[in-house]
Amino acid sequence: MIIQLAKDITTAQHAQLEEQLKAINYKSNHVKTQFGDYIIGVGKKDFDIRTIGILEGVQDIHRVSDAYKLVSKKWKVQDTVIDLGDGVKIGGGHFQMMSGPCSIESEDQIEKTIQLLKDNEVKIMRGGVYKPRSSPYSFRGLGIDGLKMWYKMTRAAGIKIITEVMMTEQIDAMMDYVDIFQVGARNSQNFNLLDALGKVDKPIMLKRGISGTLDELLQAAEYIFSNGNERIMLCERGIRSYEKAYRNTFDINAIAMLKEKSHLPVIADPSHGIGVRRFVEPVALAGVIAGADGVIFESHHVPEKAFSDGQQTLNHQEASKLIQKIRKTHALREEMARM
Amino acid sequence: MIIQLAKDITTAQHAQLEEQLKAINYKSNHVKTQFGDYIIGVGKKDFDIRTIGILEGVQDIHRVSDAYKLVSKKWKVQDTVIDLGDGVKIGGGHFQMMSGPCSIESEDQIEKTIQLLKDNEVKIMRGGVYKPRSSPYSFRGLGIDGLKMWYKMTRAAGIKIITEVMMTEQIDAMMDYVDIFQVGARNSQNFNLLDALGKVDKPIMLKRGISGTLDELLQAAEYIFSNGNERIMLCERGIRSYEKAYRNTFDINAIAMLKEKSHLPVIADPSHGIGVRRFVEPVALAGVIAGADGVIFESHHVPEKAFSDGQQTLNHQEASKLIQKIRKTHALREEMARM
Amino acid sequence: MIIQLAKDITTAQHAQLEEQLKAINYKSNHVKTQFGDYIIGVGKKDFDIRTIGILEGVQDIHRVSDAYKLVSKKWKVQDTVIDLGDGVKIGGGHFQMMSGPCSIESEDQIEKTIQLLKDNEVKIMRGGVYKPRSSPYSFRGLGIDGLKMWYKMTRAAGIKIITEVMMTEQIDAMMDYVDIFQVGARNSQNFNLLDALGKVDKPIMLKRGISGTLDELLQAAEYIFSNGNERIMLCERGIRSYEKAYRNTFDINAIAMLKEKSHLPVIADPSHGIGVRRFVEPVALAGVIAGADGVIFESHHVPEKAFSDGQQTLNHQEASKLIQKIRKTHALREEMARM
Amino acid sequence: MIIQLAKDITTAQHAQLEEQLKAINYKSNHVKTQFGDYIIGVGKKDFDIRTIGILEGVQDIHRVSDAYKLVSKKWKVQDTVIDLGDGVKIGGGHFQMMSGPCSIESEDQIEKTIQLLKDNEVKIMRGGVYKPRSSPYSFRGLGIDGLKMWYKMTRAAGIKIITEVMMTEQIDAMMDYVDIFQVGARNSQNFNLLDALGKVDKPIMLKRGISGTLDELLQAAEYIFSNGNERIMLCERGIRSYEKAYRNTFDINAIAMLKEKSHLPVIADPSHGIGVRRFVEPVALAGVIAGADGVIFESHHVPEKAFSDGQQTLNHQEASKLIQKIRKTHALREEMARM
Repeated sequence: MIIQLAKDITTAQHAQLEEQLKAINYKSNHVKTQFGDYIIGVGKKDFDIRTIGILEGVQDIHRVSDAYKLVSKKWKVQDTVIDLGDGVKIGGGHFQMMSGPCSIESEDQIEKTIQLLKDNEVKIMRGGVYKPRSSPYSFRGLGIDGLKMWYKMTRAAGIKIITEVMMTEQIDAMMDYVDIFQVGARNSQNFNLLDALGKVDKPIMLKRGISGTLDELLQAAEYIFSNGNERIMLCERGIRSYEKAYRNTFDINAIAMLKEKSHLPVIADPSHGIGVRRFVEPVALAGVIAGADGVIFESHHVPEKAFSDGQQTLNHQEASKLIQKIRKTHALREEMARM
Repeated sequence: MIIQLAKDITTAQHAQLEEQLKAINYKSNHVKTQFGDYIIGVGKKDFDIRTIGILEGVQDIHRVSDAYKLVSKKWKVQDTVIDLGDGVKIGGGHFQMMSGPCSIESEDQIEKTIQLLKDNEVKIMRGGVYKPRSSPYSFRGLGIDGLKMWYKMTRAAGIKIITEVMMTEQIDAMMDYVDIFQVGARNSQNFNLLDALGKVDKPIMLKRGISGTLDELLQAAEYIFSNGNERIMLCERGIRSYEKAYRNTFDINAIAMLKEKSHLPVIADPSHGIGVRRFVEPVALAGVIAGADGVIFESHHVPEKAFSDGQQTLNHQEASKLIQKIRKTHALREEMARM
Repeated sequence: MIIQLAKDITTAQHAQLEEQLKAINYKSNHVKTQFGDYIIGVGKKDFDIRTIGILEGVQDIHRVSDAYKLVSKKWKVQDTVIDLGDGVKIGGGHFQMMSGPCSIESEDQIEKTIQLLKDNEVKIMRGGVYKPRSSPYSFRGLGIDGLKMWYKMTRAAGIKIITEVMMTEQIDAMMDYVDIFQVGARNSQNFNLLDALGKVDKPIMLKRGISGTLDELLQAAEYIFSNGNERIMLCERGIRSYEKAYRNTFDINAIAMLKEKSHLPVIADPSHGIGVRRFVEPVALAGVIAGADGVIFESHHVPEKAFSDGQQTLNHQEASKLIQKIRKTHALREEMARM
Repeated sequence: MIIQLAKDITTAQHAQLEEQLKAINYKSNHVKTQFGDYIIGVGKKDFDIRTIGILEGVQDIHRVSDAYKLVSKKWKVQDTVIDLGDGVKIGGGHFQMMSGPCSIESEDQIEKTIQLLKDNEVKIMRGGVYKPRSSPYSFRGLGIDGLKMWYKMTRAAGIKIITEVMMTEQIDAMMDYVDIFQVGARNSQNFNLLDALGKVDKPIMLKRGISGTLDELLQAAEYIFSNGNERIMLCERGIRSYEKAYRNTFDINAIAMLKEKSHLPVIADPSHGIGVRRFVEPVALAGVIAGADGVIFESHHVPEKAFSDGQQTLNHQEASKLIQKIRKTHALREEMARM
């Protein structure tokens, strides 16, 4: 149950509300975000929600049967729009692409990527400075200094940054140099990290776990939201299946179903979703036609020399062509939505 | 190794060829199809294939490293086109839709489905008369009499039939009333059935197994081909994954990859691929944009009363709209292919 | 709902019973097996089963909520014992081992295997004469002649035969030379084959599908039972998972749970369950301690030269040692059951 | 490649070694643990390792082809023994059980659990004070105060504590009250946490990821080891599969294979491995007979009232019986190892 509080609710009204919930044996969680003030009531007893709805200080009340509450479309029917500033918006009809290398490597590499994005009017650059790697002996990223260099260059070019944060201790240092924090698949149930990102006023892109269910993904998003941050994107990046022909199995069903279950924007990641360069295009277009609010894909000026993920990374010529095709596919989807 | 034999190869030339293969310790399989005459040589020794290529009676020779041979694109670069007659073709640029109920139930139902197809210029009707059911106590289909009734009605309307065959004993009786034999997911490694269908001169649509790999699907197709029947379609219908939010997980990666691995047409089945009616559309369109040569989906005039699979079946209004959208999406794909 | 009919039920009583089921809108399935006479009623209406229980000709009546009925332990609490003759029994406290090669290859091979079994007092020999193979170009077994040769030799030695049947057309020819028909994992939902085996008075060992659920396995067994054959064993042989370190993932949970869900004997197949020779032993012993009624495993006098599955096949020395350990483990399980 | 350094290696010798590695283009990682001093060389060039082996200051050198190095049995053939003090050892022939509730709840609960353990001579108590929960609205544990209370009571009773740590910030505060740090399945690839635990001189029990591969588990262990901590246990706790009949699918194959791949002790967790109370016993015994060095399972004096995981938790009577059976099964395994 979600109780939306009035902006001008008084302390006394709030206390009365809490008391009433206690009376019916409901556990109450107070959630205060950038945009709203809510009480999430969790309990078993069935009761007429109007008895609470009519209380002073209550703006609205909704019953949500899902395990997740605030991220559910059952409560908030209108799609969430995330505004990154400078006219860059995601969700609720706004579509964005994000591209760039797996790892940030050098000034030269950043410069070339920025050129690619500017040439194609793409507004968000992806790249990793903290890399989760299976082996401790692999390259683990340039760290905060790489981020600062990167930020300086993108800022000048009017490009936004999305990059992965791996631990709570990194948040503060990264804060001023990041436009979207990404949570990686391996951290999708790192609940302390989610808690911490809920306290940050920056958008978060949350990747589905390696073999995460949609329910787990939405509950992970609920962690962030219930800690105070409403600006969340969900990212489908392929799941682990028995099939060995590709790195992951892109779950196209998830794109369609997440759009129904939640009001949050949904992003498709075809690069990890199939993991093979020459198939990134069809998977990307499939994600778009199925309803994604954005696409994130890996590109590099020389994929063969990339520090990581080269085998699933497009070169800039391929990337440019894909961007055009994504635009055309998105336009058709919009047209068909009006049929 | 595939050795394509000349049309006019003599018995003596053939014998010489076999001898040569024996000499290098290769097992030889003679394959004679509707369209060609081949020897599939399987062995370990590496040798200069030109020593065989120059023999009299040999038209061409190819090394194919995949476990499957004749269905591989490494050998036959040109896409296979399956001609059903009356101008209905699939593959190699020809795109088809197939729709109709899970189970054939009655004259009235067939009539209404035919009307749907004619109104939308769809040329192939799907439907089951032999139904594989998990429980022995479920409805198992109208059988051969249902097929005959159905055939009579579609024939009059100029519509083709695709329907599932479950066992070799059914083939002869069904033969005259079927345009495409379908092999179901549960029979995708029923090798005796595949052998038998290889001896039939009717197109086969082979569904991927419940948790079949692409390799297994292609080797199953190889069974059919190597028994003499080249007219095969591959069908992606969703795989079994850990995710419980849908019946199956449609594997969009498979569409893209099968098109590269094989010259055979690839069909998308979004109905089984997600198993939830209101998501059939986005999955179908995803399949098309990713490269499918056709789409098969379930429709019924009153899905709520269907004998089986009602929960994933579109009504006729939804079906009509989907058909239009599939056409538009396919047209865009063709347009983008020229970019 | 299972209605057990009295041995002396009259035609009139039977008709009255059917009428009563019709009156409450229950679909009735008449099942006559080697041992009993049943009506399986399937319907939705809730009613007092005693109204049927008191009818003349009804011996007993049970409500079974599972999708499977006759194979459920909710109905038949006593474990099924399968008697192969000559004192060889499986289930209900009787434990058996079955061993031998993947494929029957030669007289010499059979002779050596028989010696292994006799030396170790194992009563059942496994081996394939019809082999389901992924590739059409692989060795597919010696066929019926191989079976006859094999039968002649085992008969003389007092050893029973278990072997796979792949299609209904093979049943009659194999009938006199087989003690247990095996249904392979790829045929576990070949419903026509299951129907046909239900009409045969020989025990059946049914393997779980490549990625079959327990529910599907039990419903497959229900096919056999409801066609008239109560003598069924269930075999756990590993499932397909994402883990690539082994051929299959042996599902030890299944052993424990099948023993609770069904009264049928449960057999562990560690050879396919892990697919790596040096780990067959620990998996076999795990199956035994968890409750299996028997173990089937592959052995060969020279595994390195086996026609198929050599990499998961024990040599005779290893097999002898495993047999001893299985006996000790089984003895401990029996001892602990009394704790 | 693992280069074990001599205890008395000089700075000059070390420098020379590094130089030599650089010369052949090998990346060198210096690892200093409680017990040894190593250089892990990672590179592609093939060379005669004796050229390095003969250098002054080098004690030993090994080639390890696995992605993981220091945790591989290819290098360290002798099993690792973890000594918790007071005669409590795990691995290399030493077997331990660990039991207790999912969540630490109260003094009374701790007291009753301690009594269970003392009565059965079990030396290690499990319990959670930081609980990873899918939903942010669930009970998340008593935290550090709960841990301190718990520690005081177990200390007095001579019982060791194993409990989960969820983030690096918790390590310092927990340090003095913990005997074994547990890393949960959801954190199995939280590489920063693994790094941090590598710097702690306390044993770590690392759970396999929700759908982690053996390779990923071993590489996660390599993170800990390469940061300086050799005292690691690997825990199999069931994997995520398509089968919905149980919470997880216990991977018995993993027990057998991990024992071969690594010298680290392997622990079986049957509670999470099947997730159903009445099947914990057979799965536990299977884990033991297959080679586990220990078993961790959940128990509670009133499972029906447990704050979490009640459905998979044994009551104390069941727990006592299981402990006895585990001992008997382990004894048989030891006996059979000598056969």
